[in-house]
Formats: sequence, structure tokens, C-alpha cells
Amino acid sequence: MYDVMEAIGAHEIVVEAPEHKQSLALMEPLQIQKILLAYRHRLIDLEKDRRFQQFLILKNYPGVFNRHPHSHIIAMPVIARRIDEEIWGTLDYYQRKERCIFCDIIKEEIMTKKRVILETVHFLVFSPFASRYPFETWIIPKKHSPDFHHIQEEEMEDLSGAIQSLFIRYHQVLSDPPYSLTFHSSPVQTRFHRSEYHWHIETRLRIGLREGFEWGTGFFVNPTPPEDAAAYLREVE
Amino acid sequence: MYDVMEAIGAHEIVVEAPEHKQSLALMEPLQIQKILLAYRHRLIDLEKDRRFQQFLILKNYPGVFNRHPHSHIIAMPVIARRIDEEIWGTLDYYQRKERCIFCDIIKEEIMTKKRVILETVHFLVFSPFASRYPFETWIIPKKHSPDFHHIQEEEMEDLSGAIQSLFIRYHQVLSDPPYSLTFHSSPVQTRFHRSEYHWHIETRLRIGLREGFEWGTGFFVNPTPPEDAAAYLREVE
Repeated sequence: MYDVMEAIGAHEIVVEAPEHKQSLALMEPLQIQKILLAYRHRLIDLEKDRRFQQFLILKNYPGVFNRHPHSHIIAMPVIARRIDEEIWGTLDYYQRKERCIFCDIIKEEIMTKKRVILETVHFLVFSPFASRYPFETWIIPKKHSPDFHHIQEEEMEDLSGAIQSLFIRYHQVLSDPPYSLTFHSSPVQTRFHRSEYHWHIETRLRIGLREGFEWGTGFFVNPTPPEDAAAYLREVE
Repeated sequence: MYDVMEAIGAHEIVVEAPEHKQSLALMEPLQIQKILLAYRHRLIDLEKDRRFQQFLILKNYPGVFNRHPHSHIIAMPVIARRIDEEIWGTLDYYQRKERCIFCDIIKEEIMTKKRVILETVHFLVFSPFASRYPFETWIIPKKHSPDFHHIQEEEMEDLSGAIQSLFIRYHQVLSDPPYSLTFHSSPVQTRFHRSEYHWHIETRLRIGLREGFEWGTGFFVNPTPPEDAAAYLREVE
């Protein structure tokens, strides 16, 4: 009745700074760039193992087991369910409109502005329309690209500035809140890779209540409208 | 691009006992039966409002805002996503086998015994094979029935005993852990009702870590095999 998944994978820890008390909001901008370089470097290497279909970059702040600043690179032999759902949505939209839904969202958000937190040369940082969590934020490249690890040096410098700016805003508006951050990127290997996908970073604050209702229904309750969240975060100097 | 849901529904609170410090593990068995009667009574009444498609009975212990023992009855104008997913699975299985997947699981669990916590005249209490959470437990009627609120008096008495027995076991094995409990029942109203569905109760302990990995991937990490969980809970006298 059930299949057992082949138990292969990789789990690597990126130690983000030599100092025990350090955070994305407070570190030197160059340090964030080095972290992104480490991610890219490792993903390019891990991709050579053809058993891996999906990479997940994940950061919990503060860490659950260790508060020293770190993040995780996880390589999986299957496509993550959440990425798979996003791919289905992307393909469905493509079939009907022949355009990338993420590209359309970016255009719409830049036009209406009310959910935008900041815009850099290459990236848009915004509160998504149907935010599931208070202060949920997406960081997305404005140019269509399915894979984080094909990012260029110049974009990486820009991205590290965008990431730091977001976490300075969180730090100031919500006094150093706990959060999780993840990179959503296309599955790898020729047979799973999806050029229609559009990679992005999602962040979620670990504040507020995630209780029985969400678990019982599969629905999300978010008391903070994304327009309000974006307005609070925009105001930070 | 997005639809806005019609904002109708009902949210009722069932106050479960006059005493502030009370729990399912410690209350008089008759009291649990009265709570179940209250649920049934309210659902039969709420069903008359044809705008409601789905009921959710939900209990968080201890409560998030108020520790006085209580539970929630929620009426929704849409089918809960999690119930919808279960219905799809049920119909898919029906098409292939012409049998209810829940009935088949019950048969299998009673035969193998290793994930069974207890069996009463009308109900089976067990740790599901693919448990997503440590000590996840299902309480399910052995006779096929899509709707909790069509339960008979005699079954209700039996169910209150099964519920109490489970929570006494939790209380003893895990020293009064926090938990959530929900009733999964078929959508209501003729056009949404599914006779193929099999109602049941799911419980989840709010212990352990549910962090970024699950959110990032949509996959569940459960360090406690259901066979171990069932064995621990079975041992309680």
C-alpha cells in the first residue's frame, strides 16, 4: 500500500560567521555575500550527484539546537511537495496565458506599489497578496530565472543588500523576531528541471499562533494584511 | 486574479466543564458524553443553514487564549482543504477497488495489531502508519459512516470512553502534554455530502519541533515511529 523512499540525501551546515552572537540584520554586508557564495558553490557541486532532485536552503533564526548563526543546505532524492505545488500552478498558468505567473505578479506589485517593501536593481522584496503568515515576505529576481544557483556575481551583491535591508526592517519593527527563511528553486537534473519556474526566497516570522485551526482545515489565518505589513517595513530608514 | 470568499460562517464555543481546572483525562466519563451530545446537537441545528458546507470541531489543550476547558465548533462556507484532499484520496481508491480506504485501513490495523492503542465495541484507536507527528492518533468508527453528527447514543457512550482512555494514556505517558484534537467529517448539504467519506477524530500533540523544514518542503519529519507510540500508549493500565 505504501512505498518506502530510498534513504539518500545530503545535509550540510553553513556556519555564517565566526562570532556566536551575529545575525543577518547586524553583520557586514560583505559577509552575507560570502554566505550566498557558499550556497552557490555547494549547490553547483551537489548537483553533480544525479540522485539529488531538489535542494533546499533553510535558515531558522535563532537556530533550534544551536544559536550560533548557521543555515542548512539539504539535498533530497524527491521534489519537495511545496515546490511541486508551485510548479503545477506555474504550468497551469503558462498553458492558459503563455507567461510566467511570477513575472506577472512582479509587474503587478511594482505597478500597485502597496505591497512592495523595497525594490533594488535586480530584486523585488514584497508582502504577497495572499500572505499566509503575518509579515510573510518574498524576495524575487525581477528577471525570469528558475535556479538560484545560476545567479551572477553582480546579482548576488544586490541580493545580499536586499536580504540585509529586509532583516534590518524586521529587527527594527518587530524587535529581532524569530524567523525562518527558505530558497525555492527549480528541481535539478535535466528530467526534473523546469525552466518555467521562477526561484525566490520566502521568509516567515515565527510569531503569533499556528494552532489547531490551520492543522484541522489546511487553511491559514493571518491577522496582518500584507499591505499593512509592507507599510510598516517600508517606513524603516 | 483572485476571488474573495463570502465572509459567512459560525464560531461557537463549547464550555466543557464548570471547573476551571479540568481535562478530558480527569473528568467524569458522563461529562465527555455530554460534550459529544452538545456537538451533535449544534451540528444538527447548524446544518439547516444551507450556506454552510463544512463543520470543524476543534479543541486546543490547553486553550490558547483561555485555559478554561473548552472546544470550538466552526461552520464554514467552503470545504476544508484537508478534508477535500482526503475526499480525493477516498474517491480515487473507490474507483480502483470499490471499497472505502478507511474501512480497509481499519481491517489491516486490527489484523496486524502493532499500531493499535485500543479497540472498543464501535471504535478503533490507533497510530496511523504514516504518522506525521509524534504520537499522532486517530479514533475511527469501525462501521462506515461519513458524518459524526449522525452518531447513535450507544456509539456516543462508547466513543466517550475511547476518548477518555486515550487522554488518560497521553496524560500518564507524556505527563499531561498540550494537544490539538479535530473531527474530520464529510461536507454537509446534499450537493457536497460524500457518502464514501469515513469520519474520524485526529489528535496531535503540540510537542517537538515543527520548524522551517516542514514549512520549506511540505514534508513531515516524525522521530517517533507509530509502532513505538502505540506500544507506549497501550501499556498504560
